[in-house]
Amino acid sequence: MEIIDGNQIAASINRELHAEVASLTGRKPCLALVRVGEDPASVSYVKKKEKTAAEIGVTSRIILPPITITQGELFRLIDELNENSTVDGILVQSPLPPHLDEVAVFRRVNPEKDVDGFNTVNLGKIAQEDSSGFVACTPAGIMELLARSHVDLNGKHVVVLGRSLIVGKPIALLALQKKTGANATVTICHSATQNLPAITRQADVLIAAIGRPNFVTATMIKPGAVVIDVGINRLADPSKKSGYRLTGDVNFSEVAPLCSKITPVPGGVGPMTVAMLMQNTVKAFRLRSSR
Amino acid sequence: MEIIDGNQIAASINRELHAEVASLTGRKPCLALVRVGEDPASVSYVKKKEKTAAEIGVTSRIILPPITITQGELFRLIDELNENSTVDGILVQSPLPPHLDEVAVFRRVNPEKDVDGFNTVNLGKIAQEDSSGFVACTPAGIMELLARSHVDLNGKHVVVLGRSLIVGKPIALLALQKKTGANATVTICHSATQNLPAITRQADVLIAAIGRPNFVTATMIKPGAVVIDVGINRLADPSKKSGYRLTGDVNFSEVAPLCSKITPVPGGVGPMTVAMLMQNTVKAFRLRSSR
Repeated sequence: MEIIDGNQIAASINRELHAEVASLTGRKPCLALVRVGEDPASVSYVKKKEKTAAEIGVTSRIILPPITITQGELFRLIDELNENSTVDGILVQSPLPPHLDEVAVFRRVNPEKDVDGFNTVNLGKIAQEDSSGFVACTPAGIMELLARSHVDLNGKHVVVLGRSLIVGKPIALLALQKKTGANATVTICHSATQNLPAITRQADVLIAAIGRPNFVTATMIKPGAVVIDVGINRLADPSKKSGYRLTGDVNFSEVAPLCSKITPVPGGVGPMTVAMLMQNTVKAFRLRSSR
Repeated sequence: MEIIDGNQIAASINRELHAEVASLTGRKPCLALVRVGEDPASVSYVKKKEKTAAEIGVTSRIILPPITITQGELFRLIDELNENSTVDGILVQSPLPPHLDEVAVFRRVNPEKDVDGFNTVNLGKIAQEDSSGFVACTPAGIMELLARSHVDLNGKHVVVLGRSLIVGKPIALLALQKKTGANATVTICHSATQNLPAITRQADVLIAAIGRPNFVTATMIKPGAVVIDVGINRLADPSKKSGYRLTGDVNFSEVAPLCSKITPVPGGVGPMTVAMLMQNTVKAFRLRSSR
């Protein structure tokens, strides 16, 4: 059994991006990070993105509108970033406060600067197998983890647990693409699925993205399967300084011995998302420069 | 075993649409049908659409550019229709001649007039479960056939054969939606799928859309399954005046006795597509009028 080391793979990607950005003459790729309000998790996510951008040589521009910003004001802010020729990528950190319509905000971002991959057009492009678009960072990170762990999905049965718009559906569409490394048979399961263990036991590759701690147990696994755990659940743990520990959707201790490869939580899919954001930003820069 | 009568269901929908259109005061919904060149199948499809529109009371406008039209000229034609406030829906009949880029043409159509549902934005909206978009006519027709045949997909295992952009992927995303009538577990199979009969035998509802005549045989069916045959294959048949007969992807004579419900070919999914085009056109009219 091999534990897939997301930290190490993300670090490799960041090094490659650093070399790529260093080789650029003139202006460097620029990522605008928009954070509305002071949500503590958002503060820490944006800080992490800013830090990684700096390591790679990507310019970041941090915009911190107050939590009272109206939808119209946020739209105008996004419009300005859309039109600003020195900005390549735009990320609006979610969650947004409840008075703002998140989907409408994501749609406002120019698809060509939508490095978060949440715009409707970029979702449609995954279905169209059109690689000119941007894939959301978590599903993109999963595909990259699999490729760099030498897991070829061709002809394999991939079972996805969860049908969310940011993980389940895009990863299913990516695994299904008629491309090298993909080309899998795909089953998508969710809360209404009957006889779930009978289905997950058919998975050559099981991708768990349902947000329920330790949900996937040994009886749900075919021996030799590859298991990708997308869950990031906080469980109360008084022994930790933070008061909690992170747990995936997979019961790691009982499932891992059955697997050929498995991602841990933390240190699996998580670290990949920021690397993919940077990769998307460099891609946006290149696409815009070549136009 | 019940044979699902697509002709009858389509006729009901057309009658409902006729009543709806008759109740409109003022301008009627208008569909622009663009047919490039004289491909015989396209001539007959466009004629059928024009005829059904007339029956329902939808105005149709037929535009017949020559096969020599350039991409730029076709774009300008579409732009004019996009801007024309008396046009509600635009359909560019496929296939287009090889010198025209079909995907680019479909993307040129304003998503709000894209009654064919082929624009990237409308694909993305299916994934987003955003019902303000337009679903392509074949997958929309399948969902309508199932609903009007009282097949509730909730908790059922739907297996889709084929991953095309116009049938396989959208029908998979529709069956997966967290909506009344949908909410299914979905598996998508294709040419690279291993042990296909073992997967299709798990299907409560099997949707065959691969374009291979009589491909689905009795050994691939779970007794009691619902089978939807999307295939329209022409087989040479000297006994017919036309010289061919239409055959689905399902070996009807051996599969039908095992099913609870099955669609025939012809007379199953086929007749639904024009009815769905008309439904989309009336929807486009209503959405534009309410704006």
